[in-house]
Amino acid sequence: MVEPFSAVEIIKAKRENRELSRPQINWVIDAYTRGILADEQMSALAMAILLNGMNPHEIGQWTTAMIDSGERMNFSDIAVPTVDKHSTGGVGDKITLPLAPLVAACGAAVPQLSGRGLAHAGGTLDKMESIKGWRADLTNLEMHAILNRIGAVICAAGPGLAPADKKLYALRDVTGTVESIPLIASSIMSKKIAEGVGALILDVKTGNGAFMSDPSMARELAQTMVNLGKDAGVNTRALITAMDVPLGLAVGNALEVQESIEILQGGGPSDVRELTLALAREMLELVGITTDPEEKLDNGQAFDTWLAMVADQGGESDAPLPKAKFQHTITASTNGTVTSMNALAVGTAAWRLGAGRARKEDRIAHGAGIMLHTKPGHHVTAGAPMLTMFTDEEDRFEVAQQALEETPITIGVSTDICEHLPLIIERIS
Amino acid sequence: MVEPFSAVEIIKAKRENRELSRPQINWVIDAYTRGILADEQMSALAMAILLNGMNPHEIGQWTTAMIDSGERMNFSDIAVPTVDKHSTGGVGDKITLPLAPLVAACGAAVPQLSGRGLAHAGGTLDKMESIKGWRADLTNLEMHAILNRIGAVICAAGPGLAPADKKLYALRDVTGTVESIPLIASSIMSKKIAEGVGALILDVKTGNGAFMSDPSMARELAQTMVNLGKDAGVNTRALITAMDVPLGLAVGNALEVQESIEILQGGGPSDVRELTLALAREMLELVGITTDPEEKLDNGQAFDTWLAMVADQGGESDAPLPKAKFQHTITASTNGTVTSMNALAVGTAAWRLGAGRARKEDRIAHGAGIMLHTKPGHHVTAGAPMLTMFTDEEDRFEVAQQALEETPITIGVSTDICEHLPLIIERIS
Repeated sequence: MVEPFSAVEIIKAKRENRELSRPQINWVIDAYTRGILADEQMSALAMAILLNGMNPHEIGQWTTAMIDSGERMNFSDIAVPTVDKHSTGGVGDKITLPLAPLVAACGAAVPQLSGRGLAHAGGTLDKMESIKGWRADLTNLEMHAILNRIGAVICAAGPGLAPADKKLYALRDVTGTVESIPLIASSIMSKKIAEGVGALILDVKTGNGAFMSDPSMARELAQTMVNLGKDAGVNTRALITAMDVPLGLAVGNALEVQESIEILQGGGPSDVRELTLALAREMLELVGITTDPEEKLDNGQAFDTWLAMVADQGGESDAPLPKAKFQHTITASTNGTVTSMNALAVGTAAWRLGAGRARKEDRIAHGAGIMLHTKPGHHVTAGAPMLTMFTDEEDRFEVAQQALEETPITIGVSTDICEHLPLIIERIS
Repeated sequence: MVEPFSAVEIIKAKRENRELSRPQINWVIDAYTRGILADEQMSALAMAILLNGMNPHEIGQWTTAMIDSGERMNFSDIAVPTVDKHSTGGVGDKITLPLAPLVAACGAAVPQLSGRGLAHAGGTLDKMESIKGWRADLTNLEMHAILNRIGAVICAAGPGLAPADKKLYALRDVTGTVESIPLIASSIMSKKIAEGVGALILDVKTGNGAFMSDPSMARELAQTMVNLGKDAGVNTRALITAMDVPLGLAVGNALEVQESIEILQGGGPSDVRELTLALAREMLELVGITTDPEEKLDNGQAFDTWLAMVADQGGESDAPLPKAKFQHTITASTNGTVTSMNALAVGTAAWRLGAGRARKEDRIAHGAGIMLHTKPGHHVTAGAPMLTMFTDEEDRFEVAQQALEETPITIGVSTDICEHLPLIIERIS
């Protein structure tokens, strides 16, 4: 077969900041999926895209081509409206766990096709796998059955969804080409559009613990994704939310499951509750459901949905969650107010304790992580506990503590005013 | 072995336009040579370098690291001063053939480690291989013996010279990352410095038939290479010369050997003679030899050196040069003056006729090519021959003629003033 385009000519075009045509983009994604366009050519192109950008037409076509590299799912058999949520990821971000059953309890269907964590940000599947017996891999048939019965399912995305994106994402990870708004937006949205839900809420995080630490970049990413969703017929909205400080008090898989259960029982840290409810309200509004989610949280119906959802995937909610073998608490050295708590530092420390993985094939320790005992703005007295580290390997305490000390702002105590981002910064529609 | 650097961190640094440190650059080149840094990582880095550049410190270190990836040659056993010439390549550029024996006849030693052609620019070894029996591959011992006996040798560079550059050059060729001044300069100069000659003249071509079509880019490339050479203790100078029009009248391997012999016999096209003498004078001045090369060209001593040099490598100068099976002449359609003669179009047409190769493994037809019968500025009458095409496969005439017609300015006839670049544009030292 004679190829209609030359990879080198297309790379040169983007390198020289020229617009790629629809047939060129279709060929690039298709040839890359077929292995005709080589990894070293795609990584050069990805770097040219990262540095020179893509315009809205190119991003839209890139996304469409990635969707067309695989199958499209279909939820038309689900009786109630379907709505999905995606977070760009952050430290202590366990929101999917309480949110999916909560929105289901209000009458929508929530299919959460989730991933695993890499580096300092945790993954939803890793968290759920802290629950004894729970399994992430479902057949399409099982997933539809659970959705129809319970209204919420959290499971692994199948290999058939946007395979070009899977290959490209793995390549970008090792070639320094992750941080590109066109490539991030098309990667996320190709999977979400291929899922075929009716509506979508995006939680785009900003601050030092987020992939988009700069708020204006987060806004651009959010708007790009909202436009892609709408153009594809998915009713899409985004909230830009804070990730300068960890979300909640728990960072680490089993610890975050425990905190999610507290939220579902009407308790838990106020920021986790507030963000869960805000996202739930957006999702319900997008599909025209007027039920108040706060009621479902406080009357136990959201928790009942959680228990049913977990049980349907083999999870044993009665079994104790994994506990780490060792723990070590850091205390305040002086009286004062906690002024800052670097999310990246806390996330990196939890990762070093065994809560995350450096490479895809690494195993994670489900009990490992960090419990915060205070947050910015709180008063502490000398000797009071600031945070507790959990790990299965005692020698990890030292490297974790290094991560907490390496960053310019760590957990400090001062009498100065504390400054941090508001939890919900902006709404993009 | 734990690697001291992360490829992704180094790619990100260059992507964000930060300076790479000496240990970072040394590690990149070494890890790439060892296969630890993967092709897809190097191509992303090469694209970031192409778009963001490298400063003089980085270029110098990059060059040094590539030299250190292999062996350094040593010409200290040669009794007379050694001097080398490198051309960035162009259409009809056969200058190395008369130049090496001419400079040797004047008393210097000229080791010309040469390459083969790709795309529209011919390679010196391909041209020499038109001569029956001539062989490009010599042992180090043979090369030194010929240099000591004759004073000039044209042969293939061994695999031990800057192996990192060989690997990187092949990668850049398929990833759209060729046209970067830091990468071109370090590629050329790493090989030339590793050769270990005392002095070096660079012929940097500009115009549509050159890799650096823009004169200001050619100037920047020339200055970068001159600085690299001087910093490494090689007395280096550059001439920026015209490549908007083919050099001489012959384009194609055996045709160019024939034209080179005419030059060595005191005849030949005036531009080829002028550039050969200009480069010879620069080379002799660099090594402090005051002999007039014009005398050596006209008294036959340069030609005698050529015959001895060819014979020492098995070449049979008495044997007829290969001739193409078919020829086709294009004539002028009207009276007038030739205003332009696009070097790229002529080079591409000769390549299509079989004089060049599209891929490394392609065979070339030594007799194929183009003979020009006129040059810009010459008067022609309707029906007079403009150029003759030579090929071994008759159906190639059509694709060659397409190449001549595709380009915006081809061989046109007009009564307007003809504009072309002066042969020698600038001297950089």
